[in-house]
Amino acid sequence: MANPHKQFHLAVFLLAGGHHVSGWRHPEADALGVHDFQYYKRLAQTAERGKFDAFFFADVLGIGQNDKRFDPSNVRLDPMLPLAALAVVTERIGLVATVSTSYNEPFNVARRFATLDHLSNGRASWNVVTSFKSQEANNFNQHSLPDPSLRYEKAREFVQVVKGLWDTWEEDALVADKESGIFSLEEKIHDLNHEGKYFSVRGPLNISRPPQGHPVIFQAGTSEGGKELAAETAEAVFTAWSTLEKAQEYYRDVKGRMARYGRAPDQLKIMLGLIPIVGRTEEEAERKEQELQSLLLPEVGVAKLSYMFGYDLSPFPIDEPLPQTFNLGDAHGASRRFQPIKDIADREQLTIRQLYERYAGNRGHLQVRGTPEQIADVMEEWFVAGAADGFNILPPYLPGGLDDFVDLVVPELQKRGLFRTEYEGTTLREHFGLSRPANRFH
Amino acid sequence: MANPHKQFHLAVFLLAGGHHVSGWRHPEADALGVHDFQYYKRLAQTAERGKFDAFFFADVLGIGQNDKRFDPSNVRLDPMLPLAALAVVTERIGLVATVSTSYNEPFNVARRFATLDHLSNGRASWNVVTSFKSQEANNFNQHSLPDPSLRYEKAREFVQVVKGLWDTWEEDALVADKESGIFSLEEKIHDLNHEGKYFSVRGPLNISRPPQGHPVIFQAGTSEGGKELAAETAEAVFTAWSTLEKAQEYYRDVKGRMARYGRAPDQLKIMLGLIPIVGRTEEEAERKEQELQSLLLPEVGVAKLSYMFGYDLSPFPIDEPLPQTFNLGDAHGASRRFQPIKDIADREQLTIRQLYERYAGNRGHLQVRGTPEQIADVMEEWFVAGAADGFNILPPYLPGGLDDFVDLVVPELQKRGLFRTEYEGTTLREHFGLSRPANRFH
Ligand SMILES: Cc1cc2nc3c(=O)[nH]c(=O)nc-3n(C[C@H](O)[C@H](O)[C@H](O)COP(=O)(O)O)c2cc1C
Ligand SMILES: Cc1cc2nc3c(=O)[nH]c(=O)nc-3n(C[C@H](O)[C@H](O)[C@H](O)COP(=O)(O)O)c2cc1C
Repeated sequence: MANPHKQFHLAVFLLAGGHHVSGWRHPEADALGVHDFQYYKRLAQTAERGKFDAFFFADVLGIGQNDKRFDPSNVRLDPMLPLAALAVVTERIGLVATVSTSYNEPFNVARRFATLDHLSNGRASWNVVTSFKSQEANNFNQHSLPDPSLRYEKAREFVQVVKGLWDTWEEDALVADKESGIFSLEEKIHDLNHEGKYFSVRGPLNISRPPQGHPVIFQAGTSEGGKELAAETAEAVFTAWSTLEKAQEYYRDVKGRMARYGRAPDQLKIMLGLIPIVGRTEEEAERKEQELQSLLLPEVGVAKLSYMFGYDLSPFPIDEPLPQTFNLGDAHGASRRFQPIKDIADREQLTIRQLYERYAGNRGHLQVRGTPEQIADVMEEWFVAGAADGFNILPPYLPGGLDDFVDLVVPELQKRGLFRTEYEGTTLREHFGLSRPANRFH
Repeated sequence: MANPHKQFHLAVFLLAGGHHVSGWRHPEADALGVHDFQYYKRLAQTAERGKFDAFFFADVLGIGQNDKRFDPSNVRLDPMLPLAALAVVTERIGLVATVSTSYNEPFNVARRFATLDHLSNGRASWNVVTSFKSQEANNFNQHSLPDPSLRYEKAREFVQVVKGLWDTWEEDALVADKESGIFSLEEKIHDLNHEGKYFSVRGPLNISRPPQGHPVIFQAGTSEGGKELAAETAEAVFTAWSTLEKAQEYYRDVKGRMARYGRAPDQLKIMLGLIPIVGRTEEEAERKEQELQSLLLPEVGVAKLSYMFGYDLSPFPIDEPLPQTFNLGDAHGASRRFQPIKDIADREQLTIRQLYERYAGNRGHLQVRGTPEQIADVMEEWFVAGAADGFNILPPYLPGGLDDFVDLVVPELQKRGLFRTEYEGTTLREHFGLSRPANRFH
């Protein structure tokens, strides 16, 4: 077996239907799986068979107001619940849930992840997001979205409180001694007494310390505030880049910020999004991609581009270039990562149709089409070039797209020594090689 | 089989460790089961074998500050997560989670229960509580507990918003038509546009309508505000009375309030708490009770009484009557239901020790000790006398206390035609005989 430090990590990004915008229309896709636990169970067990580090549920707290017809991601289960159920039908794979710091209370979030960590024996992880859509704000008493810097300031305090609450029970506070009648040791249960700008939380939590100490913190921000929060608190980040240079730049940037917080670079794993279109032959892979592209309706393509850019393109002629009036600099933070795509569009003078045909399916994620060897080549190249510590696999349609990756690509990665052939640890923290956080009260 | 309208309903109230304050110390109790999914799975499957209507998780968002040593209920999983996992290892039993309207957002709560209802194919239920402990307020940015009438006013609006959100997707809004590319029908997905005193929520929800239409609404308030909220919105209530007269009075009171809201009395099921101490013989039952009583530490007894009365009794001599200075009228709402116990203490001039020996174990719930026939007699009597539509079973210790009830008492109830021998429906709404709510947008 190769040096374990020369191996990368794998997560699967679950989006019911699949990641290509038309993936749910694929003949082999399970379009109605979104409500069905058997669907998630099959996917999680497949990823576990492939020895994946983690299974990841994204989340958005509302639906796209302009896109009520075509988008399967307008229907989503609350991630914590299917993950709790998956915890009891899987053994090793990490379970990552996205939860927003803008529309929840830290006490509840700390407790829910502690619960998931107990139910899964140490496999819980929180993807910290600040939420960036105004539709979400409208569902939570707000008429508009707060400024990104305020959202990140609040997120920072929120994460601090959550980590503090996880420490309020020392490791060995719970004794359940029937003989003496002492259930827990008072001197090992602590108030937090947090009084901050956004939150005032006394504690202690009403659940004992999570098996991992702290569930693993994931994050996915790309703005200044986002990268800074990652450098300070995240143990893994999801990221999306379609050019090697941009990915390397981001990698160096975020890892470079960590020293200021007294953190070693290997205590943060950068997981790069990758949409694999796998064929046993090049022709088969090409056919698959064409099949998916042929299912892409113009309305959906334009809507996706509009969503990515945060700018409504539907009034403009589809066979002409992007309108002159549109400048990505005005768009909200989440759209800024699409600047490279905007640059390509301007440089090549692509029409709206050409642009969505190229990018709507993958939404800025690296898409790789080919045989298992060709896909493994790209992964190896990007990993070795310092663009990522691992990959966040986004199957174009489900469940077939994940089956293909696990059955065809994973064995090739294992053959090259790039990926584990067996789980060595039992917790997500162990899979990632992350150290266990000390307890501040100890 | 007897007339189904002559049958009652059964729920089991889960409190890890059991309901007698010393139940967790019982030799057969699983004192550390609280973190272990296998514990909950065994209990839920036992209740389902007994054809119970529902499995109920209470919840409190904090721990007793003065009682960090003796109380196993200082450790609790977030109820929604184990219930989600139980949904996939049970088939018929209803799954009730307590969630507070004081420390959550209606959008999140609506979505979580819709998720649980989908995962369980129509077995989700929400026990609506306003939370009554100041320790809980301290974990959510508040230095003291808001006034009960404000809490209930907010709860009322909260429940309205949640029900509204459950209607935002019409029954048949999701089509997932691969051919046309239409995933959902725009004209069947509605904004809620709620603008109220406490909440402003646009909607729609991002999950399709729950299988039950609306998950079943449980409630457990006993104040004026609590009873009024129950009469207006609850479909089942949990209640605790140790005298038949008080239970009948409450039953008549709550059912009598329903007409004002245009509701029929049988659309609300009153579930009375019952702690069964079951023996194959009277002697065995008596021995069991004595065994539990002998495990009750004085500190725990005094702490429990103090908690019930909302008044710290620890400074007072244990072998003297309640202090003159203590008047239950000053206590918070949740303590008012203990007035009958206070009256008995005053009338019989019981010492603090005598009082906790009699009431700390059961905390005001009806406790019945005896053979299966004797326990069935009491249940039949109270049911026929119009004190309850069903019983909320609180096993004194777990898992054995539930096994005894299911294996010994349930067959006796079935023999008398008082309880079902098979599930007839598949949803909790069907078990309870509740009608399916119409969709306001339809
Ligand atoms: C792979 C990936 C997954 C993401 N998942 C979510 C998500 O589930 N929910 C969410 O609100 N934001 C999600 N985001 C958005 C980020 O949290 C973040 O808001 C966005 O990248 C913009 O960065 P900024 O907030 O730093 O401006 C995701 C981003 C990436 C790259
Ligand atoms: C059987 C039963 C179970 C209850 N479970 C909870 C609970 O899990 N969490 C909670 O905060 N309150 C719970 N309560 C308290 C009630 O919600 C309510 O606050 C209390 O009965 C006082 O009534 P009031 O709020 O109308 O004054 C329960 C009450 C009863 C009778």
